[in-house]
Parts: sequence; C-alpha cells; structure tokens
Amino acid sequence: MGERIVRLYEVGGPEVLRLETVPREAPRPGEVRLRVRAIGLNNSEAQYRRGEYPMRDTTFPTRLGRECSGLVEAVGDDVRLVRPGDEVSTVPSFDIQRGGVYGEWAIVPAAALVPMPAALSYVEGAAVWQQYLTAYGPLVEHGALRPGDCVLVTAASSSVGRGAIQMAKLLGCEVVAVTRSPAKVEALRSGGADHVIVASEEDLVSRVAAITGGRGFRLALDPVAGPGLAALAQAAGTAASIVEYGQLSREPTPFPLLDVLRKGLAIRGYTLWEITLDPARLARAVDWIGSRLASGALRPVIDRVFALDQIVEAHRYIESGRQNGKIVVDVEGAGR
Amino acid sequence: MGERIVRLYEVGGPEVLRLETVPREAPRPGEVRLRVRAIGLNNSEAQYRRGEYPMRDTTFPTRLGRECSGLVEAVGDDVRLVRPGDEVSTVPSFDIQRGGVYGEWAIVPAAALVPMPAALSYVEGAAVWQQYLTAYGPLVEHGALRPGDCVLVTAASSSVGRGAIQMAKLLGCEVVAVTRSPAKVEALRSGGADHVIVASEEDLVSRVAAITGGRGFRLALDPVAGPGLAALAQAAGTAASIVEYGQLSREPTPFPLLDVLRKGLAIRGYTLWEITLDPARLARAVDWIGSRLASGALRPVIDRVFALDQIVEAHRYIESGRQNGKIVVDVEGAGR
Repeated sequence: MGERIVRLYEVGGPEVLRLETVPREAPRPGEVRLRVRAIGLNNSEAQYRRGEYPMRDTTFPTRLGRECSGLVEAVGDDVRLVRPGDEVSTVPSFDIQRGGVYGEWAIVPAAALVPMPAALSYVEGAAVWQQYLTAYGPLVEHGALRPGDCVLVTAASSSVGRGAIQMAKLLGCEVVAVTRSPAKVEALRSGGADHVIVASEEDLVSRVAAITGGRGFRLALDPVAGPGLAALAQAAGTAASIVEYGQLSREPTPFPLLDVLRKGLAIRGYTLWEITLDPARLARAVDWIGSRLASGALRPVIDRVFALDQIVEAHRYIESGRQNGKIVVDVEGAGR
Repeated sequence: MGERIVRLYEVGGPEVLRLETVPREAPRPGEVRLRVRAIGLNNSEAQYRRGEYPMRDTTFPTRLGRECSGLVEAVGDDVRLVRPGDEVSTVPSFDIQRGGVYGEWAIVPAAALVPMPAALSYVEGAAVWQQYLTAYGPLVEHGALRPGDCVLVTAASSSVGRGAIQMAKLLGCEVVAVTRSPAKVEALRSGGADHVIVASEEDLVSRVAAITGGRGFRLALDPVAGPGLAALAQAAGTAASIVEYGQLSREPTPFPLLDVLRKGLAIRGYTLWEITLDPARLARAVDWIGSRLASGALRPVIDRVFALDQIVEAHRYIESGRQNGKIVVDVEGAGR
C-alpha cells in the first residue's frame, strides 16, 4: 500500500502525467519520507508540465508538485525536528526532481516541513503554504500597507488570489478583486472582497477611480502580466506598486512607461522563493500565517477535491480557469 | 538692460524658441524676480519644446526652463528668506508657464531658491540641482546602496549621468557607465567611472557579468527605456532595481517579464518631483548635496557654454547627443 506516484516522462498536455507503482525510497540524511494524504495543485505545475518553465538540470522521468500534507513515515540521519507519525505540511521550497509530492509517498527535505495546524483537515493543510506565502511577501514583508489602503488582486479566484484577499482584509485594506467571470463575483464578495470588477464587462480603470475617489490603488498583485498591465498602471495611485508574480497571459507585456514615470510606479517581480530561501524571512512568515490559521483568521478556500487517479482530469480542470479557490487531490479518500 | 526672454509660441524644432524683449514683471506675493546670470539646459526642455511632454494647462506663448543661477532683483510680499542682491540658484520645482528661466529675468517662487555655494561660478551654479537631485533620489533616498555595490548608469555622458557617477562613487559603489560613443570613454573614466561600456560596440550583458563576477548590478539608472531595457534586466543581479527616469528612446519598451520574475527585479519610475514636491525630502537632499558641493566632493561637469542669443543653436546641440556633461547658457558673458 502506498506506492503509487505521478511521474512525467516528457512535457505536454495533462495526459503526460503518468500514475505508476514505484517502491518507496529510503530518505537520505536530512530527508523525510512522507505518507502523503493530500496534495495542493498549482498553476505553475501545469506550466511546468507544458514545458513553459525553465527546466535546468531536469532529467526525465521527473516527479512533480511541492505542496502536500501527510504523515512522517521514515526519517533520514540527522533529522531531529520531526518523528514518524507527525502530521505535517510541506513549504514549497525544494527541488521537485526528487522531492515532488504528487503520489502516495514523497521524499522531501525535513527543513521544508511545518506541523499541521490542528484546526485544519489534511485537504486544507495541503492548500496553505503556496497561497499564503506567495501573498505574504508582497502584502506583509514588502507592502508597507496601512489600514484603508486600496489593494487590487487580479486572477482573484485563484488560490493565491483568495488567500491575498483574506490577508489584505486582515491588514485593514480595502480590497478590489478582479475576475474574468461574472459567475465568480458572489464567491469573491463573500470571501472578503469589498469590490469585484468583472474585467470582461467593466472598465477597470474607471471602476478603480470611482472606488478610490480618484486616488488609485496602492498595491496590485498580478499573476497575469501581458497587455493588461497597461490598465493596471493607469489605475494605480501615485508611488503605487504592481507586483507581478506569474505569466498567465501568453501575450507580450508592454512596459507602461508614461504612467510609470508620471506616477513613480514600481513594477516588481516576485516569487515565493524570496521567502522560502531566506530562513529568517520564512520563519517570520510561517509564524505570521500559522498563528492566523490556528485562530481561524485565515482559512483556505477549497474549490474542488480530486482522487489521485484523477490527476489528469485535475490538471485539465486547473487549465480550464473555472476554479474558485484551491484544487486538492485527496490521496486516500474523498476529502474531509 | 535685462529684458530679453525666450518664449515659445508653438511646439516644434529649435527655431520655435523666440528671443524677445519683454518688460520685466513685478513679483507677486511669495515670488522673486531674478536677474538671471546662467541657465542650465535640460533634455526634458527639448522634449517639451517638441511637444512630447504632456502640456496640461499650457497656454502659448509660454516661457521655458527651470534651472538657473542669478541675483535676486526684487521680492514680492511675504518673502523673507532672500533679499535683493542675494546670489541664488533655482531648484527645478515650479511651473514654467510663468516661472520659466530662459532669459535675462525670471519670476520664480522664493521657495525654489537655494543660496549659491561659494565654491561655484554662476555657470556651475546653474548646472547643479537638476542633475544632483535627479541622481539623489534613486541613489541616496531610495537606493539602500552599500559600498561595493555595482551601479550602472546609462546615457552616462548626460549631466545627470555625470552627476550620478560622482554620487555613486561618493557612496563607495563600483560604477559602470554606459555610452553610445567611443569618443566619450576617456572623459567618463576620468569623471569617476570604474568601467565604461560602449553600447554600440560591446555586449552589455556579458561585460556586466564579467565586471561583477556574474552577480550583476544592484541598481541601474536609465533615462532611455525602449528595447534596451531587456539587456538591463538580463544584466541585473538578484533583487536589483532599475530606475527609469526618462524616455530618450522613441521606441516602445517591452517589459522583461521573465527576468523580472526570476530575479525579483523592481523597475521603478522616477522624476525629481518626488524630491522637490516633498519639503522634508527636499531639505535633506539640498543639505546632502550642498555640503558636498561646498567641499568640492561634487562638482558639476560643464560641457559647453552658449550665449543667450545662441539658444536655438544650444537646443540643436542638446538634441545632437554629442554633449558630455552640462550645457549652460551664460546670459551676460562667456562664463567664468
């Protein structure tokens, strides 16, 4: 029991994800073998699978995925902070070639493990760190946000978007969520957004101007880039920041030079590696997020739960853009 | 004597600058009339003249120019900090419609005046504030630079470029100057640059990699934008900043999304209004720069001095891109 894992032999469509039975490996020093209970899926994994990510040093077959919850099953030498039987989540901070977590077992660095907050189910515990750590950097670590500041979140129905909305509200900000789909408006509003802009139907620039009394937003979190950056720059306030953390748009991104100059905008690139590769920052972030998960102030929004043998279908769903929150694979059941 | 001023009746080539005899006006409350001795010319004034700047509320004819040195000739009501006869320079922080300084007299806000550092001539005193305040914001106010950090300066032979090189050296940085012209290399080197890259002949990315041992630069100051931003992003170090403060390239600027994401770059727009419209920042900046002018640690590089009736020729020269340092009009003589 517990030997099926997902591997990738080539880049391509969802069907290149192969579910195979592979005997469990032994953890090396500093590593831990997990019995995986739930896996958090991320858009970046679909991009990686399609071959749109730089694959330095990748050899095929490779494993995939960095976010899961589960039980420690075996520990390598020098591992002292966790023991077999511990309930843990992974902080997505390691190489997936060896450490990928899609499967019933996974070998990950012990340093990437965080105790599961007691308030969370395994499914929720697999849906925490990618989204909240991604939002934490721009909003808490770099944002210098004050209560009342307007924060704009694009691709708001993504897991990071939903997490960022919760986090910005905790900081006292006025949150504007941007979505392409009118069907998602209500869920975003009940998820904390003060205002929702349906980008396909409304003019983002004039809506933001009306919402902010002409002042514009203070910070935007945008995983889309592409031609839409121009409207963000127009809607931005003086000295505002636009944080790019993805490339969902496949189109080129013109740099909005005039607005950038006139308003002194900063357009910044961000990946959560800034947090996860810096032990001091990571510790601060895990503490900040963990205490708010424990109190219920933050709570991941689960959109849909798949079984492990539905991994191809789950990737199709990720690429459909229909999700509203996190997509999780429940390895041993139907979620709880 | 002292009644000729330059006015613009329309946008266009250098020939639209008209030298006219216009009786001196009286300063209103808070204003001062200057007997202008020298005028610092700036590229932005040529852009304005060509109609490439937003001209909100401009009515023709309009005056032009914000940077000069001279003597206080008359003061309006409520002006207490300066008196007739004081030798002053202007901090470029005011509206040019009324306050333009191209001419033998000018009406400017008293708040825009700074005493002339004793060590400077009038010609040098007209060549100080635009360049050093522009460089001050990114390098001192925002830069968080440490000794040994690599600072890259494009359009390095411009007055701001030359000022930025001096300032970055004072901060202990390693300075890379980028110029289009091999003829300017020696002057840039003797002006403080540790390395000079001739962009038309050398590969900027590999030169910066060699200079920095592969680490890339920490901060770039770039008034060019356009397609060259891609190479700057490639040459940038992790978490580096690229400060855009002009639009010398007339071509569109693609946003270098992949490098921005991978390295966590910040691309920031900047104009010296960020400093000049904030009294506390401006006071800090004037103090920082003024003390270093007084000690000789900073010294403006004068490229060429024109007479007032050569204003059309001076603008042609600005647009030629041949300058190496500041272009100044000496109103009453041949400079000293």
